Amino acid sequence: MQLELLDRLRQVNPIVFNIANFVTVQDVANGINAIGASPIMSEEVDEAQEMVQMSAAVTLNLGAFTTPQINQIRTVGQLANQYHKPLVLDPVAVGAVKYRRIVATKLLDDFKVDIIRGNAGEIAALAGVDWQAKGIDAGSGEYDLVTIAKQCAQQQRCIVILSGPVDVISDGQQVIKISNGTPLFQLHVGSGDMLSSIVGAFAAVSPNYFEAAQSACAVFETAGQLVAKQLKQALPGTFAVQLMDALHLVTVAQVQQNLQMEVVK
Amino acid sequence: MQLELLDRLRQVNPIVFNIANFVTVQDVANGINAIGASPIMSEEVDEAQEMVQMSAAVTLNLGAFTTPQINQIRTVGQLANQYHKPLVLDPVAVGAVKYRRIVATKLLDDFKVDIIRGNAGEIAALAGVDWQAKGIDAGSGEYDLVTIAKQCAQQQRCIVILSGPVDVISDGQQVIKISNGTPLFQLHVGSGDMLSSIVGAFAAVSPNYFEAAQSACAVFETAGQLVAKQLKQALPGTFAVQLMDALHLVTVAQVQQNLQMEVVK
Amino acid sequence: MQLELLDRLRQVNPIVFNIANFVTVQDVANGINAIGASPIMSEEVDEAQEMVQMSAAVTLNLGAFTTPQINQIRTVGQLANQYHKPLVLDPVAVGAVKYRRIVATKLLDDFKVDIIRGNAGEIAALAGVDWQAKGIDAGSGEYDLVTIAKQCAQQQRCIVILSGPVDVISDGQQVIKISNGTPLFQLHVGSGDMLSSIVGAFAAVSPNYFEAAQSACAVFETAGQLVAKQLKQALPGTFAVQLMDALHLVTVAQVQQNLQMEVVK
Repeated sequence: MQLELLDRLRQVNPIVFNIANFVTVQDVANGINAIGASPIMSEEVDEAQEMVQMSAAVTLNLGAFTTPQINQIRTVGQLANQYHKPLVLDPVAVGAVKYRRIVATKLLDDFKVDIIRGNAGEIAALAGVDWQAKGIDAGSGEYDLVTIAKQCAQQQRCIVILSGPVDVISDGQQVIKISNGTPLFQLHVGSGDMLSSIVGAFAAVSPNYFEAAQSACAVFETAGQLVAKQLKQALPGTFAVQLMDALHLVTVAQVQQNLQMEVVK
Repeated sequence: MQLELLDRLRQVNPIVFNIANFVTVQDVANGINAIGASPIMSEEVDEAQEMVQMSAAVTLNLGAFTTPQINQIRTVGQLANQYHKPLVLDPVAVGAVKYRRIVATKLLDDFKVDIIRGNAGEIAALAGVDWQAKGIDAGSGEYDLVTIAKQCAQQQRCIVILSGPVDVISDGQQVIKISNGTPLFQLHVGSGDMLSSIVGAFAAVSPNYFEAAQSACAVFETAGQLVAKQLKQALPGTFAVQLMDALHLVTVAQVQQNLQMEVVK
Repeated sequence: MQLELLDRLRQVNPIVFNIANFVTVQDVANGINAIGASPIMSEEVDEAQEMVQMSAAVTLNLGAFTTPQINQIRTVGQLANQYHKPLVLDPVAVGAVKYRRIVATKLLDDFKVDIIRGNAGEIAALAGVDWQAKGIDAGSGEYDLVTIAKQCAQQQRCIVILSGPVDVISDGQQVIKISNGTPLFQLHVGSGDMLSSIVGAFAAVSPNYFEAAQSACAVFETAGQLVAKQLKQALPGTFAVQLMDALHLVTVAQVQQNLQMEVVK
């Protein structure tokens, strides 16, 4: 795993353009900033071209959008393709809300995504697999997560990160599992959104998106795990604050020491 | 008081759909999550039906809305009635801003609300009582808070929570006062919004909304009070973080031990 | 410097109306609240007049706006002029994004701003000076910051705060430098937005906007500096929380003791 991407990211300080979820936007901006990249947000299609041109990566979060915003999202996605910027998609709640699944599926016809990051319910929905999602939460199903991630990656021809207690990352052929992390991530709304944008920050400094996806997950999950180890109780407020601290302080050496990774055969 | 609703809430983990105030939305989402429910937010009318159907309660926050959003709020309110989901309204600043009072009053003609949660200025405005509200703050007036809460509950035929240093809760006949809490709530913007959504979470697990309202207030105010006791100074930032921790940790036993409740005759 | 404005602000508790940046809005609301003023936010033009009338100052943040919001911003700016309310402008990213520079410049023709608060890249762009801005960050250039601040103040006929490691404040003739602060401000997205709104709070209690600008910067930068002194590492999450605490607790005496101010000749 190319964990040295973390150091490169901090050296380059790439601008990551985010079509954000209004619920978690400040946390996402601070997370990008803490890890060492530079966030920028916009809801206005008239500045989309400039935003995409100045950025080193683009993250589209489908967490909460209105009809006018879908046009902006489509334009930004197409511009990212046109200017060859890495494009990350977070398909929030497409597993639970049919409307969002329809919109997301249409959008995926209009531009090509490089990396998709979602929970099991969201990735299963995009892969067309039967799954009981629950609101913004993953829900449960009988399929093997590896199969779902791989299938989604093959169908969308991109890297897929199925994140959860174990992150399953696939390019459609190879599959990597990362078992770092902590249940405390579930206690903080926006952990997934933050991971998606941090994946964008890593993709901004690596032409190999499969490697970028792995490193981003390893760093993010380890940062959370290191915070959780220090806490004696499940403290969602304190965890959120210290996660921001840890994203700024976590080193390549710490991630290497803690890394629980498995190459799935 | 049915404080065991807190345990039921944590067991059931109900989805609470929020038409949120963009100022405080992340805090509200995290508060719902911390107490043990599952938040979902949307600004798009096209997914309103799905959102309402999957939810166990709906909270409408009138904190900051645009004209297009009023249509969405109306639709969501009517759907909540149609699908028999408990409906909570937070009429932010209707005491201070005539425009908001007019919009809120019209909305209250279009659907039936089960619980209204506001400060003295907001509840007085809905009850048609003369009161000097100040911006988003309660302001001051000469009327008895019990009279105002009762009158508003009778007029709107719903449960009313008039929250402040003392929470006054009425179903139009009975009145309950809860004196837990801390002045630190005033130091954190969004405390009221968070309480309103937590009221929604309690209403999601109790058909008796008067009981749900009481339990929600008792739990929320006690959580804040327990945090305040540990702080040696008025620290608004630290309070907000530890409130989130306390919402997750607070137990029925702790609330029972600390409860300062009075049945008004 | 009229540092006693801090005490007056806390006594008066003025309402500050903010056209906010959706990325940082909650933090800004809490910052205004913590320092001792009362925040109110709106995105709806139909309540603009009421909002401006009830407020003691207005802050316009151009951080993230859509085309419909530009109309609201224009209306609010014109109403602030009409009702003689101090008007603060934060021209976020006008240095990096040509679209924003064009919109901001047009807006500045439609109403008169009393104070502009931006980083070097933003103030340079408004002053028409060549500068390499980077996204939401200041970027770098060869011009003297004093010259840029002075030139912008002369052109816009208002007070200019060019904030950064050193805050340069000018009324077009006089120039003051304040060197308090900490690099940790860069680690928290929204520090600048918060300062702009706090400048609004000070302008609400002082007819002398040059004095208001100086006091606001001195208080804000000192609060950050006092927090940074206590931290052994660069902790962006903890800093953000404790900054909120410090804004509430910081006293005139503390600011006076720590003040590093220079009158530029």
